[in-house]
Parts: sequence; C-alpha cells; structure tokens
Amino acid sequence: MIAFQLGAVGILRSCFKEKFGTPRQPHLVPGATAALTVAPEHRPALSLAGLEGFSHVWLISYFHLNTNKKFLPKVHPPRLKGAAVGLFASRSPHRPSPLGLSLARLVKVEGDTLHLAGIDLIDGTPILDVKPYIPECDRAAGASAGWTADAPFPTLTVAFAPRALADIAAARKRLKLRGLKRLLSDILGQDIRNPRDKALGADGVDLGFFLHDFEARFMVRGGTVTLLRLETGTLMHKNERRSP
Amino acid sequence: MIAFQLGAVGILRSCFKEKFGTPRQPHLVPGATAALTVAPEHRPALSLAGLEGFSHVWLISYFHLNTNKKFLPKVHPPRLKGAAVGLFASRSPHRPSPLGLSLARLVKVEGDTLHLAGIDLIDGTPILDVKPYIPECDRAAGASAGWTADAPFPTLTVAFAPRALADIAAARKRLKLRGLKRLLSDILGQDIRNPRDKALGADGVDLGFFLHDFEARFMVRGGTVTLLRLETGTLMHKNERRSP
Repeated sequence: MIAFQLGAVGILRSCFKEKFGTPRQPHLVPGATAALTVAPEHRPALSLAGLEGFSHVWLISYFHLNTNKKFLPKVHPPRLKGAAVGLFASRSPHRPSPLGLSLARLVKVEGDTLHLAGIDLIDGTPILDVKPYIPECDRAAGASAGWTADAPFPTLTVAFAPRALADIAAARKRLKLRGLKRLLSDILGQDIRNPRDKALGADGVDLGFFLHDFEARFMVRGGTVTLLRLETGTLMHKNERRSP
Repeated sequence: MIAFQLGAVGILRSCFKEKFGTPRQPHLVPGATAALTVAPEHRPALSLAGLEGFSHVWLISYFHLNTNKKFLPKVHPPRLKGAAVGLFASRSPHRPSPLGLSLARLVKVEGDTLHLAGIDLIDGTPILDVKPYIPECDRAAGASAGWTADAPFPTLTVAFAPRALADIAAARKRLKLRGLKRLLSDILGQDIRNPRDKALGADGVDLGFFLHDFEARFMVRGGTVTLLRLETGTLMHKNERRSP
C-alpha cells in the first residue's frame, strides 16, 4: 500500500461560488476569473520564477465538494442528453481519485499570486499542483475526441431583462469589473441546468446562482434564457434548488 | 485541514525500469510502451466504456521514487544547461504534491488494460487518474512556451556497434517487439546523461540503463552516442552509476 503524500499549493479564489453556474470545462467562459496565492512555505518568490513567460498553466485540483459515497462506474455527461459513458472516458468529478485537470489562461503573476482566466473551478478549491503548459509535450496532433466529437455542449440564446441591464451596470461599477455582461452571457448560454433542473423546473421557473458578490436570477423558456436581475445581500442557500 | 483521499487506478507496467534512460517528457520517444491494468474494484468493464474512441489520454501519476526530503524552490532543468527556474515554472518531479501529468497515446483498450505509447514513466508508477484528452478543453491556441521555447532538449547523434545490432536482432525475436532499434535510438538521441554523469564520466565511459528485459550499454564521445551491446541476465544495480 502506497501513501500518497500531497500538499496544497494554495486555495483558489474564484468568481464561482457554487457548483450551479460553474462551467463544465475550462475555455467555455473566457471571462471567468480566479486568483491563486501560493502558500508562503512554497517560497513563491523563488518557486514562481519564470512562470510569467507562459500563457497557460495546468491546475491539478481536488474536488473538495464531492458528496458521493459510492463508486459509480458509468456517468451521464450533461452533453450526452441522458446516455452514459464509462467514468474514465469522461471528465466527471466523481472519480476514484477526485482530481481535476484544468487548463487556465495565466493573465499575470503578481508577487505570490497567479491571476487566472477561463477557469471552471469553484471558490475554495484546493490546488494540488500548478504546471506550465508546454505545447510540445501537452498537445496531441490530430487527436480523436471520442464521443465528445459528436456531442456539442447544449446552448441557449441569451436575453437580458431591462432590470438585469441596470443591475449589471451597477455591479460593474461596484466590482470594478469589465466584461460582466459577456461573462453572464457566456455562463448562461451553456445551459447550466442539469437534467433534474429541467425535469423539476420545467420552463419559466425562476432560478439563481451566485457569482462574484451577487446572485443572478434567470428563467429559461423555449431555447432562450433570460437574465432577470442581480441580487446582492442574499445568502447562499445551498439547497434552494433541491427543495421542491 | 483537508484530507486528500486518493486511490490508484492501477500500477503502470512500463518498458522503462529505472530513472536513467526514462524520457524527460512524453512524446520524445514514440515507441516507449506501457500497459495499465485497471484494478477490479474500479469495474473496468463499465468504467472504461467509450474510452477506446479517444486517441490520447492523460495519466496523472504519483512520483513514487522521489527521494528528496527537502523542498527546493528552484530547479535546474536538463535543457537549461545549469541555469535555474522556479519549481512551478518546470515539470520537475520534486514538487509539493509529487504528481506527474503525462499525455500518452492510447494504442488500444483490451478488456481491463490500456496499451499506451509515447510515455515517460517508470515501471511500477502508481496512476492516480486516467482522463480522456479532449482537444477543445485541453489545447491552448497560440500558447507561449516560456523559457522552454528557446531551450531545445540536448541531442546526440546515435551510432550502433556491430555487436549491438546483433543483440537488437536477438532481442526483437525474444520480445516479439517491433521498432526496437528506433526505440533505442530515440532514447539515446535525447542524451539521457544528467550534468553529474557528464562531469563524472567525461567522454568514453561505458554506461548502462535497463529497458524491457535487458541492459543497454553505451558510450558517449564528442556529439555521438554509440550503443555497444544489450546484456540480459544482469541484475539492476540501482547505484552503479553513483559509485565512482
């Protein structure tokens, strides 16, 4: 038996505050931002030297919010509309070793902190390792993409209610954040609902997810998702979506 | 404090038997082969379903042969000829979480076993996770490669002694292995010696590394490495190269 001794490089601070609304893969939402401060014991002044020359990094993360107790060898990826594939043919978080692999854009290195974009990870995620993306080792020419090749992510047309546009303008000032409308559009356009939401909620039901310091309330009808408003000061009720 | 609960998917069986001679990155030696048998508790008949459609997989491995006790925030990559970079700007195995990330070609899936090529991992390495390579998430367009862009791996011209060619012909039959000459050429052409070997050994000293079921003895003189012979039946003396 081997003991796997691992240490966190740091804990990610992300714009995503809960699973709901967090993109299913990196790249889908280029404006999704996060910061990773490397713990002092890893001596960031030395250990990060030279990283700023790379445009992208790998984050190996620990899926700390997994709640499943039982190993399920088949999973139902959102983009397969109910069909199942083997766990190891998927990027599901529910794995024997709950490790995530995310390619993030390295916006800049500022002292002990990496500023990242295009991420698909939740606030509070432990990052076990950071590695530079080296194209010559990490890129497979002419790779075949298996079942994902014929299964694009489901998408929705995004609309904004007048109230939402006013709330975005206010949030943009408060957070000093550019590209907020685009960020919300990219997130909602991927159809963040899971099959259960779709079954329970049917169309036209008001749903919400937390982002930065607000809750985004939206509604799906037909193939269109409409952002209704951004609410601040609400508490994150983790089980809101689960209660009938 | 978070406990990181991880389980090995399986233990890799690789053509590489020791660190010396193992490629420094994947892809450098396309003929390097390995097999990974997924442990029965992970129910490979189900959990591998659909993986065969992918041409490449990620292996997240545990560097079980690390012997360093102390954290060193700077490392000296072989291709930098003595210069140092920050640990997190490198792919050194000596990391706070000793996790490897290798892109391997998936040759085929046979029952519970993945047949892999292009690998850079040693026999006996625990594999913590296998994930499909999905180009749309795992490829960064126009990525900048930092310090690696101007630092190609050192290479040598490869020559074969007549005795070596005869030994290769015999090994090819014994092992039922195609491409053995090419495999040896790709390995030795990368100059597998580390700076210490070069300093200690100077040119013209006979060195050996273990591969498949034999020991490959070679010599470097000038910019040329010559494979001298393949020996079978020798025992692997791990410290041979370290004793004067």
